Amino acid sequence: MKAEIITVGDELLTGNTVDSNSAFIASKLTEKGYLVRRITTVGDDVEEIKSIILEALDRKPDVLVISGGLGPTHDDVTMLAVSKALNRELELCEECLERIRKFYVELHKKGLIDDPELNEARKKMAYLPKGATPLQNTEGAAPGAFIEHEGIKIFVLPGMPREMKAMLLNEVLPRLGERTFIQKKYLAEITDESKLAPILSEAIRKFNVRIHSSPKGFGKYIGIIIFGEDEEIIEKVIEFMQSRGISFKEGW
Amino acid sequence: MKAEIITVGDELLTGNTVDSNSAFIASKLTEKGYLVRRITTVGDDVEEIKSIILEALDRKPDVLVISGGLGPTHDDVTMLAVSKALNRELELCEECLERIRKFYVELHKKGLIDDPELNEARKKMAYLPKGATPLQNTEGAAPGAFIEHEGIKIFVLPGMPREMKAMLLNEVLPRLGERTFIQKKYLAEITDESKLAPILSEAIRKFNVRIHSSPKGFGKYIGIIIFGEDEEIIEKVIEFMQSRGISFKEGW
Repeated sequence: MKAEIITVGDELLTGNTVDSNSAFIASKLTEKGYLVRRITTVGDDVEEIKSIILEALDRKPDVLVISGGLGPTHDDVTMLAVSKALNRELELCEECLERIRKFYVELHKKGLIDDPELNEARKKMAYLPKGATPLQNTEGAAPGAFIEHEGIKIFVLPGMPREMKAMLLNEVLPRLGERTFIQKKYLAEITDESKLAPILSEAIRKFNVRIHSSPKGFGKYIGIIIFGEDEEIIEKVIEFMQSRGISFKEGW
Repeated sequence: MKAEIITVGDELLTGNTVDSNSAFIASKLTEKGYLVRRITTVGDDVEEIKSIILEALDRKPDVLVISGGLGPTHDDVTMLAVSKALNRELELCEECLERIRKFYVELHKKGLIDDPELNEARKKMAYLPKGATPLQNTEGAAPGAFIEHEGIKIFVLPGMPREMKAMLLNEVLPRLGERTFIQKKYLAEITDESKLAPILSEAIRKFNVRIHSSPKGFGKYIGIIIFGEDEEIIEKVIEFMQSRGISFKEGW
């Protein structure tokens, strides 16, 4: 099962913001058993975003998660780009508009904004591509969108980390089925990674797991992450590699 | 002047590592006056990396910075991918091999590694695509590479942040000329961003600057970043926008 992530925002391309969203999304997709193949970051440019979505769809991932650019300002153009890429018109989501209205009334009551009214900028957030299921935003104004398009599950999420995380956990992951992967980290006490490589390859062929390795401490250890369906299979992989003469410490 | 960034590493696609490298690279390219158009993150897969490099080159950026995957382990395949993408064979860089040899002798003297010898894995790092200029790594073993290819400046850097940063500052930026941009951040005291947008557009047409805006504090302020060649032009932009009735606070 393959996945791709697209993050949107000029602040990511000028380095004013570190893109921690894509790591969070990637870790959750990995736990669900998806192989994230590519993460692409693009600015708030409707034609650029559209191109990148079309390129991603061409590679036929099972899941595409897009994050950022759903707010009320003129450079929040992600929904428009999705609409253009999928050739699905933007349509008013009445339920979303009602939520947005209530959201600003609440902010106004709390004294956080001067004006509770729905102006054009705020209304804009209630428009979703035709056929989209709105995704509830418990932490902010802009709804997300879920679209099944040519067999690809597309999720469009806000870019504010607090809003994105809540929506990912509450609205996206439950739509990606029951399957979960866990990961465990080990330090292999071996200084020559070339001796470890064939044993790792053998383990991957024998068991239904993924293994990543990287040198730690200038080659004193090899750090290993094993991804598998449960603790039991990971334990079996460790036992197998120990039987091939590798010693392990748990954790990094 | 357009730039693209490619970051390489399975740990980025599983969310085990947040990609802070691309933000650092993006901020330094932005300061040099480059417009970073796209950041792509890919795993340690030689064919995937090759494809992504070819796609980036097709878009004809002035500069392409690639970071990650230069180490000694079997999944460090970035230089090979660059070599395949550019159709330039990997060649032994004798000067690099000598540096790598000295590097491991030093580590051994400090007691950090058991074996100072140049094994195959360590030697691998001394191979660069034909015609590449080696870039000195003051913080680690693997050299980087600078390649001018069809008018595009390509830089290949390590993924360890300490190594990448030193090489970017010492070896990459001096090759990107004298031009520098500065950026200053302001809070515009305006709650309706739609009133600000036409004034920003007018400022961009009038002055040689870039301006990014994003709402802050639920629409109480609009955060503005102005990118320009010097303080003076940024001051002029602020004066112009003040003459159109916008008040500013400096900084966020």
